[in-house]
Formats: sequence, structure tokens, C-alpha cells
Amino acid sequence: MFAEALEAPAAVERLLAENAAEVRSLARFLRRRPPALVQTIARGSSDHAALFGKYLFEVRLGWVTASAAPSVVTVYGARPNLRGALAVALSQSGASEDLVASLAAARASGALTVALVNVEDSPLARAAEVVLPLHAGEEKSVAATKSYLTMIAGLAQLVGAVEEAADLEEALPQLPERMAAAAGSDWSTGLELFAPATDAYVIGRGYAFAAGQEVALKLKETSALHAEAFSAAELLHGPVAIVGPGYPILALAPYDRPYPQLLELLGGLKAKGAELAVAASEPEALALADAPLPLPGRFHPVLDSVLAVQAFYPFADALARARGFDPDRPRNLKKVTHTR
Amino acid sequence: MFAEALEAPAAVERLLAENAAEVRSLARFLRRRPPALVQTIARGSSDHAALFGKYLFEVRLGWVTASAAPSVVTVYGARPNLRGALAVALSQSGASEDLVASLAAARASGALTVALVNVEDSPLARAAEVVLPLHAGEEKSVAATKSYLTMIAGLAQLVGAVEEAADLEEALPQLPERMAAAAGSDWSTGLELFAPATDAYVIGRGYAFAAGQEVALKLKETSALHAEAFSAAELLHGPVAIVGPGYPILALAPYDRPYPQLLELLGGLKAKGAELAVAASEPEALALADAPLPLPGRFHPVLDSVLAVQAFYPFADALARARGFDPDRPRNLKKVTHTR
Repeated sequence: MFAEALEAPAAVERLLAENAAEVRSLARFLRRRPPALVQTIARGSSDHAALFGKYLFEVRLGWVTASAAPSVVTVYGARPNLRGALAVALSQSGASEDLVASLAAARASGALTVALVNVEDSPLARAAEVVLPLHAGEEKSVAATKSYLTMIAGLAQLVGAVEEAADLEEALPQLPERMAAAAGSDWSTGLELFAPATDAYVIGRGYAFAAGQEVALKLKETSALHAEAFSAAELLHGPVAIVGPGYPILALAPYDRPYPQLLELLGGLKAKGAELAVAASEPEALALADAPLPLPGRFHPVLDSVLAVQAFYPFADALARARGFDPDRPRNLKKVTHTR
Repeated sequence: MFAEALEAPAAVERLLAENAAEVRSLARFLRRRPPALVQTIARGSSDHAALFGKYLFEVRLGWVTASAAPSVVTVYGARPNLRGALAVALSQSGASEDLVASLAAARASGALTVALVNVEDSPLARAAEVVLPLHAGEEKSVAATKSYLTMIAGLAQLVGAVEEAADLEEALPQLPERMAAAAGSDWSTGLELFAPATDAYVIGRGYAFAAGQEVALKLKETSALHAEAFSAAELLHGPVAIVGPGYPILALAPYDRPYPQLLELLGGLKAKGAELAVAASEPEALALADAPLPLPGRFHPVLDSVLAVQAFYPFADALARARGFDPDRPRNLKKVTHTR
């Protein structure tokens, strides 16, 4: 896992270069015929990349994005109406039957189907009209890292091209080197906080909430730590009830639009006695933390959440070892999961 | 909470009667002009009712349903394209600013806006073109019960009317008395399993997964128990890594289409040593359980998940007391949550 996480910057660099022409062509088509909606089709880490995509599609393009519940097609046998939609499937292996069936149903219903997939010779790739390979190389680790990060880079590349957005198109070529720098972040203060934890919350908002979903899943997979992610707003609608003195919370607070609200929330959680680990570039956010998790300085409001996950992966590896687990051998899991 | 949960059957009876004409008229319109998509707008328990609605809309009507991330509108200032969409807001109080702003943005963008709301004189009700009151009476308990159950009944009433579905339209009038019976289910075997737990999973699939989201939130709110819900398929894509000997799992296994798969999964979890509490009507599912949580006999594949939640609420109340909490006074929460 550790080694593969460090390969992510090179993989993103390959993806940006090798998919450029196909992305431009797809973007040109989508600008002329904007989809009525987007449906994302994914599971696990890939589904968290899809959630990141939802924020990109909705915030930057105004395209409402729905997450497919595969059972609708595979268990209930329904055929949702996706005429004029863009269906985006995301998967490392491209092998899970429910994703293939959902994408095929979307295509049959009239959606334009796109697969962001690492294994190019896979059933999911064959089911899609447009394939954007992740170029991540073989991913052996059960806990996905580089496939997740390349998916987000691929989504940002596509959205930037559709939007013809100078900010994204200028920032993306710098992303690989920023990721390499982020991977060297020193999060060792977090080890003491999370090594003895049995459960925890991960919070963020917007893009950072999507990133938090991936962080929480990785903590489950590699450290057998029951971490659950919430948006900073959703937290207040119930889940905050379990937060008391000593409760461990990992907050992702990059300098993005939700940052001021997140800061306010962190103050409130601190007052309840929560033990805060805060991933941030800003000194005022780090100062609120029992365990400050420094991020590189501000780069780009969207992509800073990607850097937070890149910084987190080596920490997840170290935490797993500190808790007595082998991060490369999560319990109960295989690399390719088949679900119907 | 306990008293209000027992008021839910009467509230559902009122809702079905008093909203009948408005629902028929809305359904007639929607049949003539089916929406391009549905957007649900909600937080907390209401958002879990919305997820139940997603399964209803997608499985029974083929209407793809997206869950609004309010920050898209309120924090990022975006205006997603909802022309031709149906926007459904769900809220007990109708007071949270982010929901009102999201519904207003949907309306301005061309969506038909509907609010299922308990407080009829509320900002959310005023922001919607069609209001379907929940008729739940005053809900004082911070932990929502009757408002959640009436929301689902209201969604089922609407979907049944659009679909002109004999099964739903025949079953719904019987729902209140079935709910009253379900509220008397004896789940006391579950107390011993969950009283000492620090965290737990709740699993289901399809409608029962949506119900599981509500169960998990209620366990957090009333018992300060960190319970997290997963679909039975999603569980295998990572989260199952934390399941080992003695890990407590509450499974909702009503007799619906996913039942055979769920049964298979439960066998696998049992083999890993998980401690299973299983809510089911079928003897073979109950036989797998360390703590069988009996449900009334088969009634309707969709509405049996509603009965499971109704059966759960008195259990949640008893569990909270067994764990030393007052279910009517969750920590850190107020009845009306304002988020932006």
C-alpha cells in the first residue's frame, strides 16, 4: 500500500498525458450536448471518487449527479430512465458484475457511458462507449490508493476540459509534483491519537467531505478502526450525539470555500472535549488540533483535498502497523470483489 | 421518543386520508409529465427517508434520484440545472436554512418543488409549490420517529398513485394497523447484545438498507452507540475488514427481493464470528441470529422495511435506558438544527 501510494503522482502524470486527446474529444461533445444528469456507478473507494466527482459536476458544471444503487438494476430488475444522461462507471478491476450490469442498463436506456477503469481489458471497459484508462499500473494492494487518486485526477481533467476552466487546466499539470510533496507530510502526531482508538469520525465539507469518505474507509480496511465520515453540516443533524470528551475526530480542513464554517465547527467540537486531528495548511486550523496534520501550502481549492488524501495514505500505513495490522493484508478482503 | 413512536400509526392514517386528494392531483400531473430526474433535499433522519424514496422512485417508476448536497448551493454558490426535475424536500421542522436555499434554487432552475414537512407554517413549506403535510402532530422528541415514518408513507402514497399500483394502493390503508402490531414486537434479546457495544454495523439491502440508515442514526442519537449502516453489497467492498469475533451486527432482513442474498451474507458473517441480531419474519433468518428480532409475518415487500423501523423504535428506547441514557435527551442535539 505504501509503495503504491507513492506511485500515484507518476500515475496521475501518465493519465493526464495519455488521456488528453480522448478527454478533449469527449468534452467537446459534452459541451455541445450537456447531459440531463450524471449517474455515477461504483463501489468502495471508487464510489468515494465518484462522490468527489459529484461535487465537481454539480459545483462546476451544474450537472446534477446521482449515485447508482446497483441493486435497483441487479436485484429489483428495474431499468431507470437515463435518456440524455452521462453514466460514469469507476472501478480498478472493472470486474464486479453489479457495476457492469448497471452500466449496461444505463447504456440501453440511452445514456452516454464512460468508464474510468484501470484494467483496460475488463468487462466494465467493454461495456462502456468511452474508456478513460487510469494508467495506474498494476494495483496489488487490496486497499486502493493510486487507483483512487487517478480517478479523481481523471474526473477533474474531464470537468476542467468541459468547463474550459483556466484554474483547473493550469493546476492539473502541477498536481503530480504537489502530490509527491504531500506524500512526505509528517502526520506522526496523529499516531498517538488514533493508535488506541476503537472508533472515530472523519469530517470535512464539500470536496473534503468526499475525501473524508475515502479516509474513513481506508482506516477500516487497514487499521480495523471503525471510522465514519460526515459532512460538517450533516454531523450536527444527529451523529454529533456520540461526541464526548476524548472522542477522536479527524478533520480535513483544506483552504476551500467551506473552510470558515469548518473552523467554527472544530471550535464547537473542541469545547465538547473531542480529541481533534486536523489536516490543514492554515496555522489557525492546525492550532485547534490536539494532533496537527500539516498539509502543503494552498495550491488549488479543489485539488487540495486530493493532496490531503495523498498525505493521508502513508499515515494510514504507519497507523495500521502501530495497531498491529499489516496494511497490505486487510482482514476478510480480496483485491477484486464480486457483488451482484 | 417511545410515546411518539407509538403515535406513528395514527399519524400515517391521518396522512393517507388528508393528503389523498392532493397526492392524486400531483400524481396525475407527474404521469403526464414524468420528471427527467428527482432530487431529494433533506438532512438527518429525513435524508434517510429520502433514500427510501430513491429506491421507490427508481425501482417502481424508473426515475433516477439524486440526493442534494446542500453545500453545492449554500457554500459553493452553484445553481445545478434542474429543468424538468422533481425536487422533493423532506423535513420535520422545515426550518433549516440550507434545505430552504436548496429547494429555492431547484425551483428557480425549473424543478417542480414538493415539500413533505410536518410544520406547515415553515420556511420550507412556503418555498415549495406543493406541500404534503406529514400530519404527525407536534414532535417534541429530538430523535425523530413519527415524522420519519410518515415521510415514507407519504412517499409510498405518491409513488403508488403515480404508478397506479394495485399492490401499494391496497397495502397502504392496512399500514397503520400493521405498524401498531409491529411496535409490539419483542426485541428484548437484542438488549444483551448491544448494551455493552461501543460500535456496530447495521446492514440491509434495497429498502432495508435505507431503513438501516435510520436505525444506525437512532442508535447514535439515543444510545451514543457508533452504528453505521451499509448495504449488504457495499459491506464486502471494504467495511467488512473490521468484522471479527464478537463484532455486533444488526441485520434487517425482511422478505423482499434481496432476502436470499442477505441470508447468504449473514452465513458468511456468522462464520467470521460476528454477533448477529437479525430482524426478520422468516424462521430461517431468525435461526441464524444470536439475537433474533422477530418481525410480523410478510405483509408487503416494500412496507415490511417500514415495519422493521417501527419495531425498532421501542427497542432503541429500551436500549438507551439499558445503556444509561435518556432517549429523550440526546447529547449535543436540539430539536431543530440550523445549518447553512
